[in-house]
Amino acid sequence: MKAITLANPDDPRSLSLVDAPAPAPADDEVVVEVAAAGVNRADLMQAKGMYPPPPGEPETMGLECAGTVVGTGEEVGCLLAGGGYAEVAAVPRGQLTPVPAGLSLVETASIVEVACTVWANLGMLAGVREGERVLVHGGAGGIGSFAIQLLAALGCEVATTAGSAEKLEYCRRLGADIAINYNEADFAEELEGSCDVILDVVGGPYLERNVRSLAIGGRLVTIAVQGGPKGTLNLGRMMPRRQSVHATTLRSRPREDKARIVASTVDAVWPLIESGAIKPTVSKTFPLAHAARAHDFLESGEHTGKVVLIP
Amino acid sequence: MKAITLANPDDPRSLSLVDAPAPAPADDEVVVEVAAAGVNRADLMQAKGMYPPPPGEPETMGLECAGTVVGTGEEVGCLLAGGGYAEVAAVPRGQLTPVPAGLSLVETASIVEVACTVWANLGMLAGVREGERVLVHGGAGGIGSFAIQLLAALGCEVATTAGSAEKLEYCRRLGADIAINYNEADFAEELEGSCDVILDVVGGPYLERNVRSLAIGGRLVTIAVQGGPKGTLNLGRMMPRRQSVHATTLRSRPREDKARIVASTVDAVWPLIESGAIKPTVSKTFPLAHAARAHDFLESGEHTGKVVLIP
Repeated sequence: MKAITLANPDDPRSLSLVDAPAPAPADDEVVVEVAAAGVNRADLMQAKGMYPPPPGEPETMGLECAGTVVGTGEEVGCLLAGGGYAEVAAVPRGQLTPVPAGLSLVETASIVEVACTVWANLGMLAGVREGERVLVHGGAGGIGSFAIQLLAALGCEVATTAGSAEKLEYCRRLGADIAINYNEADFAEELEGSCDVILDVVGGPYLERNVRSLAIGGRLVTIAVQGGPKGTLNLGRMMPRRQSVHATTLRSRPREDKARIVASTVDAVWPLIESGAIKPTVSKTFPLAHAARAHDFLESGEHTGKVVLIP
Repeated sequence: MKAITLANPDDPRSLSLVDAPAPAPADDEVVVEVAAAGVNRADLMQAKGMYPPPPGEPETMGLECAGTVVGTGEEVGCLLAGGGYAEVAAVPRGQLTPVPAGLSLVETASIVEVACTVWANLGMLAGVREGERVLVHGGAGGIGSFAIQLLAALGCEVATTAGSAEKLEYCRRLGADIAINYNEADFAEELEGSCDVILDVVGGPYLERNVRSLAIGGRLVTIAVQGGPKGTLNLGRMMPRRQSVHATTLRSRPREDKARIVASTVDAVWPLIESGAIKPTVSKTFPLAHAARAHDFLESGEHTGKVVLIP
């Protein structure tokens, strides 16, 4: 089979399509012929050598795909710890999802990782409830655009940040009630003490402003630290307001956790996709051989929504 | 009735016993003749003008007491938002507890606030489970000595910090498995990556070391910031380990929360007190008129366990 590899470990742009041995499935795995593979920011980090795969997982990039189970012909979505940038992937059974009714395999490949990440953090961890105000940073990205739609469907009041008028308009169309241009305004001044939940991808530089934005009982969930890992935390301010700060990644979780998350996500989120309340937001597709161009496109920050590779 | 007041708002030692109007109970309150009132660090802070009572609550200090319900003669423990340093207190019905079988009213007055604080944070919020390693800072204090006993009774492995050989020995007798002298060793070096839950009273200066000490899935709960409010948080370190930081106070909670906490605490903790698994740790009692001396004694840091005032 063909798969993407990093020809020169020191050059993140040296993504090359090469012949590779087909993955040998373990007892609890099936082999999936990949029809489409989602591109995530974590893949860009892995290409830069900053996000190695967990022990025992494939070295190949790619955290989600959709395709056909070899032998049965069943069409599935797949949450992966790696291995999506390839013609064939071995996938733990607990990490398979149905293809939502009405979605193509390309669209399915664009939502598995993001749906599981958003639901694990907003639904299972933060426990968002109808009527709560939720702030989503980076609302025009893959995670953000999915989170806005999910929260709007759940009856939350959705606030978001983005960096241009076009992106803000895009977020409003997805269902955001409040859209703040972070180049023009301080979100903490606008939202001071009002957010029940915040989904953050910036990390350290936003920490103090995120905590200032939290309401009594507010939960801050950080899933990426694009601005840097460390920030200042004011525990004295948080105490009388009973607030919490959570930080998680999905990829590092043990397989039994992932199976639990996939099952809960299919249960809670797939019906919202099938009803049209949440639409996949595929920005652009690239042939698998052009993975480097796909990474450049995602890195540029000009896109809205998700980027998908087609073997 | 007589009650303690701060004669000079600028002098925390000017605690004086004066005549005061008896409190008028609201519809959902009963009047309790106070037999004993626990002294807490929050009272010391209030005397210094740093911890005003929540709106609508008594100005008088005192967050817990035990006594007799006027009219029925029933003996009760009371969780208070204020008003315990007095001969009579008005108490919301939801904040009354039974007197645990075998305990005196003095002992009961020494455990209500601490039991509710420890259970709300370790049981209800952090969800400690049998077999988990839990670090309790300040193990020889009122909160710490109760938390060690509760955790040992629940089958946790208990680590603790204290500042002298005598206090460490006291903590071991209460059930601590690991006791670290913070003047001689860095607890984060000893416990690196091993603690499922940490109960913290130091705050900012301990934040980085507390997070270093957390295991995968670890929860840090800060209930006081005796060392200062602000610290550095490394979200990047926390993410792959799926950790969380919580900060809470009990006093600021709405009454319905307090009623829920009192009910859960009586349910989960009172049986452990009645079986003798958790013993009250009254260090010293003072007459109510000597509240200033009681505060000096608690402030000195020489005590182990709780300080109680007797009207």
